[in-house]
Amino acid sequence: MTSSLSQTPTLHDRSVRGFASDNYSGVHPEILDALVAANGGHQVAYGEDDYTRRLREVVEDHFGDGAEAFPVFNGTGANVTALQSVLPRWGAVVCATTAHINVDENGAPERIGGMKLLGVPTDDGKLTPELIDREAWGWGDEHRAQPLAVSITQSTELGTLYSVEELRAIADHAHSLGMRLHVDGARLSNAAAALGLPLRAFTRDVGVDILSFGGTKNGLMFGEAVVVLNPEASTGLPYLRKMNMQLASKMRFASAQLVALYEGDLWLRSASHANAMAARLRAAVDGIDGVEATRPTQSNAVFARLPAGVADRLRASFRFYDWDQATGEVRWMCTFDTTEEDVDAFADAIRRELAAG
Amino acid sequence: MTSSLSQTPTLHDRSVRGFASDNYSGVHPEILDALVAANGGHQVAYGEDDYTRRLREVVEDHFGDGAEAFPVFNGTGANVTALQSVLPRWGAVVCATTAHINVDENGAPERIGGMKLLGVPTDDGKLTPELIDREAWGWGDEHRAQPLAVSITQSTELGTLYSVEELRAIADHAHSLGMRLHVDGARLSNAAAALGLPLRAFTRDVGVDILSFGGTKNGLMFGEAVVVLNPEASTGLPYLRKMNMQLASKMRFASAQLVALYEGDLWLRSASHANAMAARLRAAVDGIDGVEATRPTQSNAVFARLPAGVADRLRASFRFYDWDQATGEVRWMCTFDTTEEDVDAFADAIRRELAAG
Amino acid sequence: MTSSLSQTPTLHDRSVRGFASDNYSGVHPEILDALVAANGGHQVAYGEDDYTRRLREVVEDHFGDGAEAFPVFNGTGANVTALQSVLPRWGAVVCATTAHINVDENGAPERIGGMKLLGVPTDDGKLTPELIDREAWGWGDEHRAQPLAVSITQSTELGTLYSVEELRAIADHAHSLGMRLHVDGARLSNAAAALGLPLRAFTRDVGVDILSFGGTKNGLMFGEAVVVLNPEASTGLPYLRKMNMQLASKMRFASAQLVALYEGDLWLRSASHANAMAARLRAAVDGIDGVEATRPTQSNAVFARLPAGVADRLRASFRFYDWDQATGEVRWMCTFDTTEEDVDAFADAIRRELAAG
Amino acid sequence: MTSSLSQTPTLHDRSVRGFASDNYSGVHPEILDALVAANGGHQVAYGEDDYTRRLREVVEDHFGDGAEAFPVFNGTGANVTALQSVLPRWGAVVCATTAHINVDENGAPERIGGMKLLGVPTDDGKLTPELIDREAWGWGDEHRAQPLAVSITQSTELGTLYSVEELRAIADHAHSLGMRLHVDGARLSNAAAALGLPLRAFTRDVGVDILSFGGTKNGLMFGEAVVVLNPEASTGLPYLRKMNMQLASKMRFASAQLVALYEGDLWLRSASHANAMAARLRAAVDGIDGVEATRPTQSNAVFARLPAGVADRLRASFRFYDWDQATGEVRWMCTFDTTEEDVDAFADAIRRELAAG
Repeated sequence: MTSSLSQTPTLHDRSVRGFASDNYSGVHPEILDALVAANGGHQVAYGEDDYTRRLREVVEDHFGDGAEAFPVFNGTGANVTALQSVLPRWGAVVCATTAHINVDENGAPERIGGMKLLGVPTDDGKLTPELIDREAWGWGDEHRAQPLAVSITQSTELGTLYSVEELRAIADHAHSLGMRLHVDGARLSNAAAALGLPLRAFTRDVGVDILSFGGTKNGLMFGEAVVVLNPEASTGLPYLRKMNMQLASKMRFASAQLVALYEGDLWLRSASHANAMAARLRAAVDGIDGVEATRPTQSNAVFARLPAGVADRLRASFRFYDWDQATGEVRWMCTFDTTEEDVDAFADAIRRELAAG
Repeated sequence: MTSSLSQTPTLHDRSVRGFASDNYSGVHPEILDALVAANGGHQVAYGEDDYTRRLREVVEDHFGDGAEAFPVFNGTGANVTALQSVLPRWGAVVCATTAHINVDENGAPERIGGMKLLGVPTDDGKLTPELIDREAWGWGDEHRAQPLAVSITQSTELGTLYSVEELRAIADHAHSLGMRLHVDGARLSNAAAALGLPLRAFTRDVGVDILSFGGTKNGLMFGEAVVVLNPEASTGLPYLRKMNMQLASKMRFASAQLVALYEGDLWLRSASHANAMAARLRAAVDGIDGVEATRPTQSNAVFARLPAGVADRLRASFRFYDWDQATGEVRWMCTFDTTEEDVDAFADAIRRELAAG
Repeated sequence: MTSSLSQTPTLHDRSVRGFASDNYSGVHPEILDALVAANGGHQVAYGEDDYTRRLREVVEDHFGDGAEAFPVFNGTGANVTALQSVLPRWGAVVCATTAHINVDENGAPERIGGMKLLGVPTDDGKLTPELIDREAWGWGDEHRAQPLAVSITQSTELGTLYSVEELRAIADHAHSLGMRLHVDGARLSNAAAALGLPLRAFTRDVGVDILSFGGTKNGLMFGEAVVVLNPEASTGLPYLRKMNMQLASKMRFASAQLVALYEGDLWLRSASHANAMAARLRAAVDGIDGVEATRPTQSNAVFARLPAGVADRLRASFRFYDWDQATGEVRWMCTFDTTEEDVDAFADAIRRELAAG
Repeated sequence: MTSSLSQTPTLHDRSVRGFASDNYSGVHPEILDALVAANGGHQVAYGEDDYTRRLREVVEDHFGDGAEAFPVFNGTGANVTALQSVLPRWGAVVCATTAHINVDENGAPERIGGMKLLGVPTDDGKLTPELIDREAWGWGDEHRAQPLAVSITQSTELGTLYSVEELRAIADHAHSLGMRLHVDGARLSNAAAALGLPLRAFTRDVGVDILSFGGTKNGLMFGEAVVVLNPEASTGLPYLRKMNMQLASKMRFASAQLVALYEGDLWLRSASHANAMAARLRAAVDGIDGVEATRPTQSNAVFARLPAGVADRLRASFRFYDWDQATGEVRWMCTFDTTEEDVDAFADAIRRELAAG
């Protein structure tokens, strides 16, 4: 099989990068290589292939014996399927109101998963045992959707991090209440890089029961995995994945990407790089009068407030999102392919627009 | 970006091919090229990218002005999302009992889509107006799930084909009853190749309202599209796709594949080849005493009955599935990468095993 | 509390009775008495009242220690809630295609219960182990909705009866396959009367796991109960009943009716009477040329075929339903308040119309 | 038909009344009369009976031409069915976090209705245009459950009332945003009595689109109605009611109760009485040192804070519920059958227990 790039035109401008989302970036070259390597010949569909087999080993290497990986298409699919597998039909999930499951999934957890979300407002996107207690009550009361799982995001949607101690406190608290702990780990690698810890140290080892294990935001074309860390907590994943329309027929290509990401240190290299670029941007921004960083920069996101009009002018050159239009807060995401030059040019542009404003 | 194949090992034996499923095959080289071409730089996530834009044009070229494409991850996702978009919450779907939606989707149409399937037994996997009438009744009766859509598969799960006349009769009948017509086109290209017709001629032009437009079985890594052929029939697709967890963040890669497949004639070349291989296999089998072909070979599937034991011995070398264990019927699928040598070797093996039996 | 009937007008003609449905009849006088007796004062809502407590004893008296009753509003609610409680989210139910759950509940089992129904055509509305096997397969295959329950109706929608031996064979077969057995007992009393057996003898004692225990069709104003016969088979009923919107706030009135029906022999008197009226109608019909009884009359339903036009003329005086318009088959239901005079007058009318025809 | 009370024992102590809930009371005698009057003979099931016909007239008399009533079993059923009928599958509902739909229905709106609730914290259980705006945004963004309805409760779960002006402001605001307005009117009669207004004046006339029209809490045995006030806003109610398992077979008895409640002034007499008893209790409590009324007493509920221990001692004689265990707040509900003596005895008991404390 030979690639013949000349035959297929590139329709987009490859020189454009921005700070909008880690989903805007493409596929890491090593992942593309893995896809090419996994191609050719026939492999059993739906997961009985050599790449999915290898993925199981890789996941056990990271998370320990008995950890089991179920590749799915996307993060919403991972979250809903993971949570369903630890909940009865009458279950509810305590989460931060800012959680991706609560604000970015068009109600899929409720509509498809049949669960109720019990959102708790937080300052920084992070739950605590005390915050969990605001909604963790009413067991045995048939009128109340039964709070039987806690879902947290690591690193959070606000770019913040849970420490190992915070995670252990949440897990212990949840378990003491008979609840399961789910981690939305769409950016788990960024957390690991920031914490300087193996993936297992702040997931399975602190008591996380089930994990949405991210891939796409860290350089895959597509693909996440539900990883069962506590096999006693989860049932029916193969069926749930299929009925949730998350079972890839040519699964070897999802698995091959996840293997390539997590087999060596690509996950860590890429995440560390993204985090470093965010830190660089934050440092630059901290030196600019008129921009106010609004949250700790602990992973690959920088949140800041800009004077009215500046954000829109900046967006003519660099895409990024408003976080809160009411307050003027914006979000800048760095990715595996963000360069130092990108950051510096962006910081320059901010300075320029502020001066012009 | 340079590919460095040497770094990423191939874990599987690329020389192995079989007759199990078009899902066992990998990615067509031209599709891989397209993925590489679509990589690099940043592109807006979730569908506002240059490849999805181009896909819209390609789909309109095939199906006419106003036809609209919504890429999704897989066939089940396409079917459920398409049908939901043409049905109210109280809708039901008349389909053949052998339909993929009825037998291979673990109840996703019911559980996720909230629809009832009204299955009708058929001889050959094909509905007719008369067969539709067996379940198309009871409108206005609140006790009955309201039959408001017909779903057919082209080419069918049994390898059979609807003619243009048959399709038009079904569409006219459905419409006369106030029902919408959905086509599960996971193998629509094979049908087009067999009919010798443009895609539009036996879909939109005969009155099909909405289409699950296949990709994966014809050489994509992943990706299908819901194609709305009658815009008045379908509502809410962007929302349904998202809540059904079928919205790819890096959608450019789904779209780029579909563009590469359907922009030129790759779809037709691949499907024609697969059909031709099935025809070759059928011809070979017709000449072998002891094998009985059980169904017309009209697309890329051959169904046959083998003496007890022969199938299992054959499977030591070539994978394929039982279709009906009770009767000994088996199914052999050909794909874009099936070779004449594969077919001939397989036919030889059948002869050998029959002789040995 | 004194009733003052003169103040509230009766809007309908109380002298009119027909053969349309046991749902057309009203409330048995003893049930009305029980409602009056249960009124007055305050009782804890949602089931912690003295009547629901008493119902638990009554149900245990009928079905044995550990049988547990959960009153619900109606039969669809009972069926869906019962089945959900014995099925995981990926479960499917093998049933006759003529089952109420399949044809008369507007897809509630699928849409609300999230289950797939695997319907099997039957001659007489009755499943057998062999018929169950047509759909009871594919366990462990994630693509197939998992057949984990069998649902049968006793007496059936076609007026037929399962014998004790037939029931035991079905229960044993279901259990040997790891499936649970549900009985839709909307007319269980009619079956008991016809079989001459205690309720327990052909339910719990033969291996039925869970029961929809009928009330409304046998003289209640409203109210059925899910009865768990095998406590190991069912989980979450209190939660499921509430989330399925089947939890009555003033539950004492549902329970008081069920107590009044089942505490003494009212259930049996009423059902025996209805059966006897059906037998009387059948005997009369068997003596009329031009009417053909189409099914065995084993409970309180008579099915017959009438010459074209006769049914519609008859309906001017007696309401009843077509069963199959294509064949001219009609259904005549008898109830607790059908009188011998009703039957004889109806038979006379049939004779008259046939003579006139 | 003669009632023979002597045959059916009363199992409970009719002299006991408390302040726990309007659901603890029984059936108003005039409603019982209506049930007796509706009994006897056969009536078409499922709503084509004379009482449901009359109910339609009664509802039109209250709410104006074109208002359409659909009786259902209970409040949760009314709320979910009403909201579904005004929402597409991707809809979301803005409501107060204290709304019954959010806290007391075990997730039925999400699980059965497939909708997302967007809860907004309030001080007094009442939404305002400003509070609605906290969640009413993001139309057209496929990632966000689309806020297409507002649901408010009148009188609220906290015993407070919306004024006509407040309602009109909410309705106008909702409509200006393309949203529908639903009122959970489980206690609408109490609101009417408190406002001194016809039912129509603060529902249809201010722009409410659809109503859950209460019955059970105001003296019915069971039964509420979905009332469509804006026929353009709602679709599919007959189907939704059936598939939501809320269609009573012997519907005449639900309708006859609603007719008896709303045909004359029973609804108003009962609600006015309950409100007056709450006012009497509030007045008494305001004169007792050591009890702090915590909310305005605008309908039939009194909320108060009691010293630790007092509530539990009081409950030995009078049942009532904690509202917030953390703050010691309790809720006392008055009903159609609360007497002045009940209130005075309860106030005495409070004084006694406080003195003893």
